[in-house]
Amino acid sequence: MTGNIIGERFVLTSFGESHGKCIGAVIDGCPAGLKLAEEDIQRDLDLRRPGQSIVTTQRKEGDVVEIMSGTFRGYSTGAPIMAIIRNQDQDSRAYEAIVNTPRPGHADATAKAKYGGFNDYRGGGRFSGRITATFVMGGAIAKKLLKETLGVEIIAYTRELGGMRAENFTLDDARKNRYANDVRCPDPVLAEEMRRKVIEMRGKGDSLGGIVECVALNVPTGLGEPVFDSLDSDLAKIALSIPAVKGVEFGAGFASTRMTGSQNNDLYQMSEGKMTSASNNAGGILGGISNGMPIVYSVAFKPAASIAAKQRTIDTEKEQEVDLVVPGRHDPTVVARAVPVVESVTALVLADHAIRAGFIAPVLKSVE
Amino acid sequence: MTGNIIGERFVLTSFGESHGKCIGAVIDGCPAGLKLAEEDIQRDLDLRRPGQSIVTTQRKEGDVVEIMSGTFRGYSTGAPIMAIIRNQDQDSRAYEAIVNTPRPGHADATAKAKYGGFNDYRGGGRFSGRITATFVMGGAIAKKLLKETLGVEIIAYTRELGGMRAENFTLDDARKNRYANDVRCPDPVLAEEMRRKVIEMRGKGDSLGGIVECVALNVPTGLGEPVFDSLDSDLAKIALSIPAVKGVEFGAGFASTRMTGSQNNDLYQMSEGKMTSASNNAGGILGGISNGMPIVYSVAFKPAASIAAKQRTIDTEKEQEVDLVVPGRHDPTVVARAVPVVESVTALVLADHAIRAGFIAPVLKSVE
Amino acid sequence: MTGNIIGERFVLTSFGESHGKCIGAVIDGCPAGLKLAEEDIQRDLDLRRPGQSIVTTQRKEGDVVEIMSGTFRGYSTGAPIMAIIRNQDQDSRAYEAIVNTPRPGHADATAKAKYGGFNDYRGGGRFSGRITATFVMGGAIAKKLLKETLGVEIIAYTRELGGMRAENFTLDDARKNRYANDVRCPDPVLAEEMRRKVIEMRGKGDSLGGIVECVALNVPTGLGEPVFDSLDSDLAKIALSIPAVKGVEFGAGFASTRMTGSQNNDLYQMSEGKMTSASNNAGGILGGISNGMPIVYSVAFKPAASIAAKQRTIDTEKEQEVDLVVPGRHDPTVVARAVPVVESVTALVLADHAIRAGFIAPVLKSVE
Amino acid sequence: MTGNIIGERFVLTSFGESHGKCIGAVIDGCPAGLKLAEEDIQRDLDLRRPGQSIVTTQRKEGDVVEIMSGTFRGYSTGAPIMAIIRNQDQDSRAYEAIVNTPRPGHADATAKAKYGGFNDYRGGGRFSGRITATFVMGGAIAKKLLKETLGVEIIAYTRELGGMRAENFTLDDARKNRYANDVRCPDPVLAEEMRRKVIEMRGKGDSLGGIVECVALNVPTGLGEPVFDSLDSDLAKIALSIPAVKGVEFGAGFASTRMTGSQNNDLYQMSEGKMTSASNNAGGILGGISNGMPIVYSVAFKPAASIAAKQRTIDTEKEQEVDLVVPGRHDPTVVARAVPVVESVTALVLADHAIRAGFIAPVLKSVE
Repeated sequence: MTGNIIGERFVLTSFGESHGKCIGAVIDGCPAGLKLAEEDIQRDLDLRRPGQSIVTTQRKEGDVVEIMSGTFRGYSTGAPIMAIIRNQDQDSRAYEAIVNTPRPGHADATAKAKYGGFNDYRGGGRFSGRITATFVMGGAIAKKLLKETLGVEIIAYTRELGGMRAENFTLDDARKNRYANDVRCPDPVLAEEMRRKVIEMRGKGDSLGGIVECVALNVPTGLGEPVFDSLDSDLAKIALSIPAVKGVEFGAGFASTRMTGSQNNDLYQMSEGKMTSASNNAGGILGGISNGMPIVYSVAFKPAASIAAKQRTIDTEKEQEVDLVVPGRHDPTVVARAVPVVESVTALVLADHAIRAGFIAPVLKSVE
Repeated sequence: MTGNIIGERFVLTSFGESHGKCIGAVIDGCPAGLKLAEEDIQRDLDLRRPGQSIVTTQRKEGDVVEIMSGTFRGYSTGAPIMAIIRNQDQDSRAYEAIVNTPRPGHADATAKAKYGGFNDYRGGGRFSGRITATFVMGGAIAKKLLKETLGVEIIAYTRELGGMRAENFTLDDARKNRYANDVRCPDPVLAEEMRRKVIEMRGKGDSLGGIVECVALNVPTGLGEPVFDSLDSDLAKIALSIPAVKGVEFGAGFASTRMTGSQNNDLYQMSEGKMTSASNNAGGILGGISNGMPIVYSVAFKPAASIAAKQRTIDTEKEQEVDLVVPGRHDPTVVARAVPVVESVTALVLADHAIRAGFIAPVLKSVE
Repeated sequence: MTGNIIGERFVLTSFGESHGKCIGAVIDGCPAGLKLAEEDIQRDLDLRRPGQSIVTTQRKEGDVVEIMSGTFRGYSTGAPIMAIIRNQDQDSRAYEAIVNTPRPGHADATAKAKYGGFNDYRGGGRFSGRITATFVMGGAIAKKLLKETLGVEIIAYTRELGGMRAENFTLDDARKNRYANDVRCPDPVLAEEMRRKVIEMRGKGDSLGGIVECVALNVPTGLGEPVFDSLDSDLAKIALSIPAVKGVEFGAGFASTRMTGSQNNDLYQMSEGKMTSASNNAGGILGGISNGMPIVYSVAFKPAASIAAKQRTIDTEKEQEVDLVVPGRHDPTVVARAVPVVESVTALVLADHAIRAGFIAPVLKSVE
Repeated sequence: MTGNIIGERFVLTSFGESHGKCIGAVIDGCPAGLKLAEEDIQRDLDLRRPGQSIVTTQRKEGDVVEIMSGTFRGYSTGAPIMAIIRNQDQDSRAYEAIVNTPRPGHADATAKAKYGGFNDYRGGGRFSGRITATFVMGGAIAKKLLKETLGVEIIAYTRELGGMRAENFTLDDARKNRYANDVRCPDPVLAEEMRRKVIEMRGKGDSLGGIVECVALNVPTGLGEPVFDSLDSDLAKIALSIPAVKGVEFGAGFASTRMTGSQNNDLYQMSEGKMTSASNNAGGILGGISNGMPIVYSVAFKPAASIAAKQRTIDTEKEQEVDLVVPGRHDPTVVARAVPVVESVTALVLADHAIRAGFIAPVLKSVE
């Protein structure tokens, strides 16, 4: 029961429950001298917050972050940074009604078994998508650190939603458009189609899955600590900590399994006096180490498990099958909201590895 | 540079290089009282060993394991178990010739950059597939521990090779057939087709990728430590430590992204007085915790990077493009050899989590 | 800069600064099903709190703890427990005046060097004795867990203060008396002498050191994970994390260096049908493993570094020697306040090791 | 049972048993580019080896180290360094005779309890002083790394033996003399007295304890990661992993508890344009961080538990008291042999912290 801490040198401890008093994060290992204020975190939290568009749940979460420790006069101090969001707008009554009828596709049954029934099940407790706000808290700090020290830029977007796949877009389209539409799609035309499909699915009381793709630029060559703390290993580990994620692939990923070696190998070339590769099927990682090309990886989100339609489950007290209608309002898809979360977890891993590999010093040069 | 240790309570330290004196593993955390001898490890090593069939490289590796510490009178003692394989049949000359012309798709360039050129590049050094024998050393012990304490059975097999996908087989077919053919396919008919394609590809000097699927049976409900040390997170992390792996998916995985929630959710049912689910799109893991259903996940292997065909690369001394013909004999595919490796890493994670969650005691009951 | 997390299975993350918004702790790994409320923690915090007697600093700290996560309906849930104390009554002006004149015996100069001047120096920041309240938060939970599952009792007391050493007392005296006098001495008569000497020293603007001895009863045989995570190793590590601690010894400790083997060895005997030992020079630990005898160890506290008397230091801006009078009110000794802190850190280590060794299950039996 | 790994960035995994096939160590995290050969390790091992003088046990151990991985062409590669010593000259018969009569002062009883009787008890198994040779293997590499990158010099010596305390010597005396006499004393005259007392005690079948003091020079300001991974915390932890250690103190240590603050505080002064302190009661560590002064700490060794004299113990099968004469030849003191071990563990901690704090890069500049 000690799985709530991640990272080696830039370490996130996540705490809090969906309907408890708060959610929050402690970051241990942030170098001293990073200019940091609540708005740096709030910006990313706002991108993740529900209730912001028709395609996500209508629950209003203020999600106002407060930094409680680790900064002084506007800069990180080298001490642990604790940040917190107080919960509000919780109505937990619906969860009492279904405590003995685990929702299919959710962690209700596994959590109950694991924690002997002591877990806080309200709103899914620790298993709520809400917990990803704590990833964003840490990720926002990591992003800023990476940007200011190495110029790293991280761009995630909805590559696919309900089977509709964005094919015609540039990275610059993604940079500009992803947060300009409700579904976080780099292609505004497809975005509108996706949006319609989400609304249609909401009407049916059903939900959609999709794929978030993430690109990280300006990552220096040499991040990753093989054989086990490979860069892709650590990205995969944290991506799979996001609720509803069922798969991860790097570069050509599963598609590469159907290529031949001569098709898949990225041939080296000189470009503007620099060694680079003509293609990027490797997704910027070879042997678990970043190779200077953009890091590219994809995260598969299953359709949201909370649906309005009636489903078959078990009444665990009576030990018999019953019909369940999950009460409350639901996200018809988590994909759109997951986009800033994927950016955040990517930043957490890159910051951790950049410090491990000596690319970011314990005290930043920007000391006054 | 400290990424060679994995696990929390059943901990593997991997060491050694492809063309160095040896490869080996230290297991710290194996409970005392496990009956253990070299043949328990040798059996799995033999399944991984190259030179055993026409579809893999012709290099002869004896791969004879020796347990050097941690057992006494045939049982594990609770002390670290060190096991070693001495290397033999190495001809490193070919690697000297290509030290300045990094092989496309390999870690040559990233390793050189990361380790300042000090890395042992012979045979790929730490980045050789050979290093996975150290995973098998640890995994064989984990497998035995899991089997004797919990009855866990782990079955991996080649689900797909060069685009040919096994569809018509039962788990029992896989159990019986996978190690009875060269390509580790559960379907003997398809296996023969796969084998032919591998030989054809070898003739062309090219290579194939594929997908290894892994099933773990009798895993108790409650393994996994969310939010970060989720069971799927830790399986994904270690799977991506295997060279050539570019993706991982659990249960329906990427396919689930194209389903609706009502299609994808596994509905609960009573079956022989036990709560179970009608389908297993979740792959046996909900909320990062095992749910009592079989663990099912897939690992994507890119086509082997070492191909006989001429490829474009850079001469890093002269800083200009050159043609490279990678010398030596190569695996036309790593998929077949990876099957026991995937079983091994699965066992490592399950053993670690079973101990963490209290399902395996520090001293086994089977004390004489 | 990632040293604020300790433990393997019962893990404390400490955060906060002396004059920041708050101090607090996250406990990850507390088993589910422990009855837990704020008063369980408050009780121990009150014993540590300054301003409670004439022998300690007059600063008034409310030190009211609030549990923010990890409990539900009065029980621990298995999720991380976050607890916080909001700071109050801080006057930081004095610290501005001395920012360039490091106080002798304090961490002012080392912290400034390490964190590039970005550290929050007000009130000593992370180096304040106040941070030990976060150890007490975690320790109080550990204590309750140990008591309810194993019946462990932890009794620390002032063994020596300003050279006056308690010699005539029983463990039961310590149990009853230690918190009944200001100096936490098991002997009430000596306590009064100690108290007078503290007051005298306060009058002189000077300070006293001393030794806290700690006894843990009912610790099961088998705690400790040699060779490195020995029980004494982990107790020593955390004890030396308490500010002002300069030494630790177990059982006969330094005195044993002057004995012969025949004098120091604890001979085994049968007592009431149980194997025990006639003496306890080992302090209850052999080979790094608890042996069933009481754990006994001592922690050396230097005299408090903050004294009212004028001291020589350096003006780091002008790079010249100056006289410094440290402003504010000071503890004439930290020993008395350290007693519950030593109990707390002992509990943290014992709980962590009891879980590691399988003596405490992830879910307590006391489920409703 | 996973306590055999220590360090965060310079990580030692220790394995092997006293009478098993071998003892050895894996170092993960050694930067690439360190010139390293077996003689670098052998030198320190030879200083620790028994059988070298009249004051230690007469067992002949070759203790020939072999580096098995992690170096290439004479330099560290960044991969794990595995080094091994094959055991020889073992006669385990004596241990069979006493398997049910635990030796007082040894780990026999605790190990048997902890590992359910499966532990390899021959020669003390993992609890033998012989295991400290694995600390020396790692420590020798750490020493060389520290010396070549930072100029750190580590000097330990016998400060006290059997109550005789060296008082009249300089650090330079210690540097020159400690390995020039059998008892590792900085004062050659006292060394001769100590030696005589050891021989006298051997004649009586008894043993002596003592204190090893260790000084580390040229340690940069800023090592240590408070609050928990303080430099003194980590030194204490590893020192207490050495068998027979019962206490640790830094600088004035326990003596400081009897000083007043005005006596104990080290006043700052300017010396040759550098801020320094007039005294070093702090032992070079303030707030858990090195302050640029020499690190000075002392380690208390109890008298060796193995004595020739008859002792009372329990026959655990018959559950009754019996007399025991521990067979074999014994060290009349472990203090002399512990001197290079204390140097080694000090080096391990300093190297780890120097890497953590960014003072040593992942690749050394000395690349060819």
